[in-house]
Amino acid sequence: MLVFPRELRFGDCDPSGIAYFPSYLNILNGVVEDFWREIGFAWPKLIGELGIGTPTAHISCDFSRPSFFGEALTFKIAVRRVGNKSLHLEHGVFGLDGLRWKAAQVIVATSTENHKSVAWPDDIRLALERRVTAEPFELDPKEAMVRAGRA
Amino acid sequence: MLVFPRELRFGDCDPSGIAYFPSYLNILNGVVEDFWREIGFAWPKLIGELGIGTPTAHISCDFSRPSFFGEALTFKIAVRRVGNKSLHLEHGVFGLDGLRWKAAQVIVATSTENHKSVAWPDDIRLALERRVTAEPFELDPKEAMVRAGRA
Amino acid sequence: MLVFPRELRFGDCDPSGIAYFPSYLNILNGVVEDFWREIGFAWPKLIGELGIGTPTAHISCDFSRPSFFGEALTFKIAVRRVGNKSLHLEHGVFGLDGLRWKAAQVIVATSTENHKSVAWPDDIRLALERRVTAEPFELDPKEAMVRAGRA
Amino acid sequence: MLVFPRELRFGDCDPSGIAYFPSYLNILNGVVEDFWREIGFAWPKLIGELGIGTPTAHISCDFSRPSFFGEALTFKIAVRRVGNKSLHLEHGVFGLDGLRWKAAQVIVATSTENHKSVAWPDDIRLALERRVTAEPFELDPKEAMVRAGRA
Repeated sequence: MLVFPRELRFGDCDPSGIAYFPSYLNILNGVVEDFWREIGFAWPKLIGELGIGTPTAHISCDFSRPSFFGEALTFKIAVRRVGNKSLHLEHGVFGLDGLRWKAAQVIVATSTENHKSVAWPDDIRLALERRVTAEPFELDPKEAMVRAGRA
Repeated sequence: MLVFPRELRFGDCDPSGIAYFPSYLNILNGVVEDFWREIGFAWPKLIGELGIGTPTAHISCDFSRPSFFGEALTFKIAVRRVGNKSLHLEHGVFGLDGLRWKAAQVIVATSTENHKSVAWPDDIRLALERRVTAEPFELDPKEAMVRAGRA
Repeated sequence: MLVFPRELRFGDCDPSGIAYFPSYLNILNGVVEDFWREIGFAWPKLIGELGIGTPTAHISCDFSRPSFFGEALTFKIAVRRVGNKSLHLEHGVFGLDGLRWKAAQVIVATSTENHKSVAWPDDIRLALERRVTAEPFELDPKEAMVRAGRA
Repeated sequence: MLVFPRELRFGDCDPSGIAYFPSYLNILNGVVEDFWREIGFAWPKLIGELGIGTPTAHISCDFSRPSFFGEALTFKIAVRRVGNKSLHLEHGVFGLDGLRWKAAQVIVATSTENHKSVAWPDDIRLALERRVTAEPFELDPKEAMVRAGRA
């Protein structure tokens, strides 16, 4: 499971003072961008050199508790399944007190030329498969205490 | 069913040339804002005067075909169910050639003071219930032809 | 002078309840997109077919009064000067009570292949030059009354 | 002078493949948010507790060279002047090869209750004044080499 700290910024929040959900998804997309770099296929290489796009075919989000600007959030990504042309991610987004929202996302490999789906090249599929995990998303209580103490 | 035309703008698209999905959700949120005004409870009144927020508790999106900047899209909203404290919307987003993406959204009534859920006031619940429809989302082929002819 | 009505949306405002200035510039960019279509060179044609980009080389904004979500704003564009490779626009953004903010923008014609500046093709330069105006931005008091009465 | 590294993300770029300038300003606003925290007055405290907003009254940007998604940028902030109710910042944004764009920004202290300007409280004005610098923005060539070597 990969972990990415993110600050919730003023510009990501709405007039009711809490995170604006389209901005949440913009942050999440940046987290996915970092995920790809971390597994060795940064998007400039993937998209620019290999001609493979990774559009989102499906995303389902459950927002359980509001977040406020200035909060330090933790985005966690779990690779749940790698299909021939698809990638199934699960996202958990945590505040100091636990889960704020989670999401299930299906990404599809496409050709950047015609936006049609394509099979993952072998090296990419292997890099993704190495990350597949069934580990659940609960925030480790010890981790929560450390984070709270540090905050 | 309520219908809102929307232009997909340059700034809503990404380096691969197609709609950036967080921007899609930003547009959709503006469509929902227009929906509330159309049923008589514009957000400045709802949020500012009545102290009722309408955050999204759940959203699930299926993107079937890409859209490109400069395209004229049609956003359709169907109210599927009105709960005591919730509102279930279905969204269909169409290009000239049919469905581009759809979404199921659950909105929750909350107090703007403490972000806790509250029951819809009677007049709002009635206004929402009057819009409940089971009508499916298929783009009327005649409508598609008219739109294509006009384009 | 070209005039574009725009609604200031919930998602364009920040936790202090007023327009978030980067969102203002996103709206303004969409207005400029509409401007290009209105003079006959919509961006999909300009960028996609003619290979000419129109990046912003300079923008200077003065925000005089705050705007709130739900407000109907009027964006006005005046073409002030057309250079060999540049376009000087002035923007005035009005609420019912007068000017909210204004901007001076310099756009440069570039090749979409290498992002280097290029001269405007003759037909585009002519279309731009036909719109040059020295007309000032003051909101016509009569217009303000009509708009206020209609609101 | 305060320095903030920032990644230019896919979602910050437009269909022509380069940074979308309203997204640049969204990033810059987040940098300014970090600046306030670094000088001891994080916005949640400033806005939420002290009731002081910091809206932008003026911003002027010069974009000299395009940036591409995936690039590591460096945002530098120089406090140029502190007025009774205002703050004059200068921003320099650098890629590995030097300046990409710069901006002059005037921020005004306002009451979050009525959005009217107010004088900076003494402790804030002192914290800002301690940061005033006339240092120019040129990227130190040695720094550029180190950065290039590290990249």
